[in-house]
Amino acid sequence: MKLIDYIESRRDENLNELKEFLRIPSVSTKSEHKPDIERAAQWVAEKLRTAGLENVEIAQTKMHPLVYGESLHAPGKPTILFYGHYDVQPAEPLDLWTTPAFEPTVRGGSLFGRGTADDKGQVHIHLKAIEALKKTTGQIPLNVKVMIEGEEEIGSVSLWDFVQKNRERLKADALVVSDTSMLARGVPSITYGLRGLNYYQIELTGPAQDLHSGVFGGAVPNPITILAEMIAKLHDKNFRVTVPGFYDRVQTLSRREREALNSLPWKEKDFRKTVGAPGLCGEKGYTIVERLWTRPTLDINGIWGGYMDEGAKTVIPSKAWAKFSTRLVPNQDPAKIAKQVERHIRKLLPKTVTAQFEVLSTGKPWVASYSHPIFQKAINALETGFGKKAVFIREGGSIPFVTQMHDTFKVPCVLLGFGLPDENAHAPDEHIALENYFGGIKAVALFYNQLASQ
Amino acid sequence: MKLIDYIESRRDENLNELKEFLRIPSVSTKSEHKPDIERAAQWVAEKLRTAGLENVEIAQTKMHPLVYGESLHAPGKPTILFYGHYDVQPAEPLDLWTTPAFEPTVRGGSLFGRGTADDKGQVHIHLKAIEALKKTTGQIPLNVKVMIEGEEEIGSVSLWDFVQKNRERLKADALVVSDTSMLARGVPSITYGLRGLNYYQIELTGPAQDLHSGVFGGAVPNPITILAEMIAKLHDKNFRVTVPGFYDRVQTLSRREREALNSLPWKEKDFRKTVGAPGLCGEKGYTIVERLWTRPTLDINGIWGGYMDEGAKTVIPSKAWAKFSTRLVPNQDPAKIAKQVERHIRKLLPKTVTAQFEVLSTGKPWVASYSHPIFQKAINALETGFGKKAVFIREGGSIPFVTQMHDTFKVPCVLLGFGLPDENAHAPDEHIALENYFGGIKAVALFYNQLASQ
Repeated sequence: MKLIDYIESRRDENLNELKEFLRIPSVSTKSEHKPDIERAAQWVAEKLRTAGLENVEIAQTKMHPLVYGESLHAPGKPTILFYGHYDVQPAEPLDLWTTPAFEPTVRGGSLFGRGTADDKGQVHIHLKAIEALKKTTGQIPLNVKVMIEGEEEIGSVSLWDFVQKNRERLKADALVVSDTSMLARGVPSITYGLRGLNYYQIELTGPAQDLHSGVFGGAVPNPITILAEMIAKLHDKNFRVTVPGFYDRVQTLSRREREALNSLPWKEKDFRKTVGAPGLCGEKGYTIVERLWTRPTLDINGIWGGYMDEGAKTVIPSKAWAKFSTRLVPNQDPAKIAKQVERHIRKLLPKTVTAQFEVLSTGKPWVASYSHPIFQKAINALETGFGKKAVFIREGGSIPFVTQMHDTFKVPCVLLGFGLPDENAHAPDEHIALENYFGGIKAVALFYNQLASQ
Repeated sequence: MKLIDYIESRRDENLNELKEFLRIPSVSTKSEHKPDIERAAQWVAEKLRTAGLENVEIAQTKMHPLVYGESLHAPGKPTILFYGHYDVQPAEPLDLWTTPAFEPTVRGGSLFGRGTADDKGQVHIHLKAIEALKKTTGQIPLNVKVMIEGEEEIGSVSLWDFVQKNRERLKADALVVSDTSMLARGVPSITYGLRGLNYYQIELTGPAQDLHSGVFGGAVPNPITILAEMIAKLHDKNFRVTVPGFYDRVQTLSRREREALNSLPWKEKDFRKTVGAPGLCGEKGYTIVERLWTRPTLDINGIWGGYMDEGAKTVIPSKAWAKFSTRLVPNQDPAKIAKQVERHIRKLLPKTVTAQFEVLSTGKPWVASYSHPIFQKAINALETGFGKKAVFIREGGSIPFVTQMHDTFKVPCVLLGFGLPDENAHAPDEHIALENYFGGIKAVALFYNQLASQ
């Protein structure tokens, strides 16, 4: 087949081009990387044009620009809106990377570097699939709209505003996203459920300034100790979140779905190996898959205060900080949960400290039916592209935009994940399996081709 | 009086010289400051010579050098050993200093800078008092041995070894130390009790690497949460340390001492103002003064783990750390307490993490009788030098060396403190009141003069 042959012939060019993309350290959460963000947006715009898209635009927002392009030369054929992001998580801790985060390197059949799996590698799969369709058929055979944002890792702060302002332009029959994982190596997957995410930060202040722990220890409030005591009260012994009302609106899983999820070819042994901890833990009464995909959680993401350097300093610090987040499931309401969390935390804190509580972002969970015929075409394309049986899964991560699009446009959202759960997204040594990167280009091209042939 | 007149005439010279000393960032806990440590030792040696001391030596140790000098030209007169330290605490957090930590500045009657109170300013008081005696009498009228170390802030790791090797040379009738505080402004004080100090660090490891909190949250051990839960269990609701056996050997205060301590001119209002926290806390059943000076404590001095930078990162970290310390009182045994603390902590931790526990230093508490006649001479000198009534107090800080000297040589230890409790030792904006610096030089010169006239 001409399309597949063309894609095969471009392996080296495609991989080199992806490495170019990965070398741009487009870390959205750090202001020092603003020039890299701008450079990444320019890079994406150029590649959209190369893929055959038109009306390419770098849309400025209050923070980081969003890149848009389209091809609308297939009247009567379906229109898809593809969404991805060019921003990445910070690479810290840098010393834990085997090769530098922004110097992509192939090792043992995988490409290593920040953004390989989340999400530059997956975005690139779609750009190259579209380009292959254009190059082999002369014209992109369906209507394609592509929107790549630069704020996904910081809560997609401007995206929704852009969508509202461009409602007509963005109209499509389906949303396609590749920012998730396959269930396991050799198991191509479509994700039909995501958790929502609220992210918080708290700053506690006890003494007005740092104090000598000898002179003052034993008679003054220590904000680190108080923060620790507060954190300790956020889970009960069954690992349930103690925030009152937290579970009130959590949807119970149907027996059928529960059975389907628990009988997927998911291996606890592999999961334990990926995690590499001496043991696992989690909410009582649920399997690991259920805990990861269908239960809400509260996770401490960072903590700091006092002396953190070499050796000893006998200080009682004035302040202590924590960053934490809640993963949400249907039908929890992020705004309501944020209020409940703040209320609970303020109640837990003693009067010996003051607290500054901040909600950095909120995002809704999403779960959808996969009865629409587009899902069968996607499954077929995955199975042909990879030569393996494909499955429907849920995932523990969050893509707030999927929820918003689904709620607003009422169109099916097809989440084709080409990462693997052990590929260290958000961690040192992030990577993507080359077989999934190359297989992904084929599967996506086949999927778009099938949509065009209806 | 010639001695006092001479000291008065040297005010500007002395202050400028102290500033020179303070400009050397001799932070003992950080290896990058090793050259500054060496420079500070050289500086001290030079000033010992200027003060009229002989056999001045910079003794190398396994870590930071110790400076020694002596004057032994008063046969039949008492011999004192003065001890102090030229190393300082780290200056971090740097952004909380009004003027830079190592650029000493006079403001509102105080000299600001790291080491002003702890302990460079107080060491300088003695050097200038000895120099004044030499310059006004032609010869130092008693036998003086001066030993200034560079490792006090990191547990005086080499000091005891030096003392053991120089037992004969260091023999004295009394040990004099100025590394403590006055009870309050205008209340010259002699300290007869200090707490001991054990300093610990713990590192917890859960997952083998940082994990995405969306993909893994809810099913894996989070070392930050587990560290917080462990810390929360170290105190009960009465603010007592939960380590089994921790209070077993704690000496009960006599009714007489309890009354004496609680009737000192110590003002809770001033203490609250210094601390500046919304409230105070502490062990149930004890007054603030008792908590600070006579009760053992456990203080968290630092905590860190996960993402601590700008914005959000949805990570479950592999590791989390804490630094903490126990202040000890008679008759707690530091080695025994360290073992009890480690055992308790290991018992508190779940099997889902591994822990590396380190004891960075240990140090015994000290309390002594003040019945020896030297204390009356010291009180008299303080009252003359300052023109105020002087008192006997205890302190919450630790000087392990005092305990060791007292235990080994069985000589009286006279702790003349010229700092104030609100002068931010170990914190940003450390300072010393100029009235106490200048008054201190006079009081110490008078004290040494009185000892010589016996």
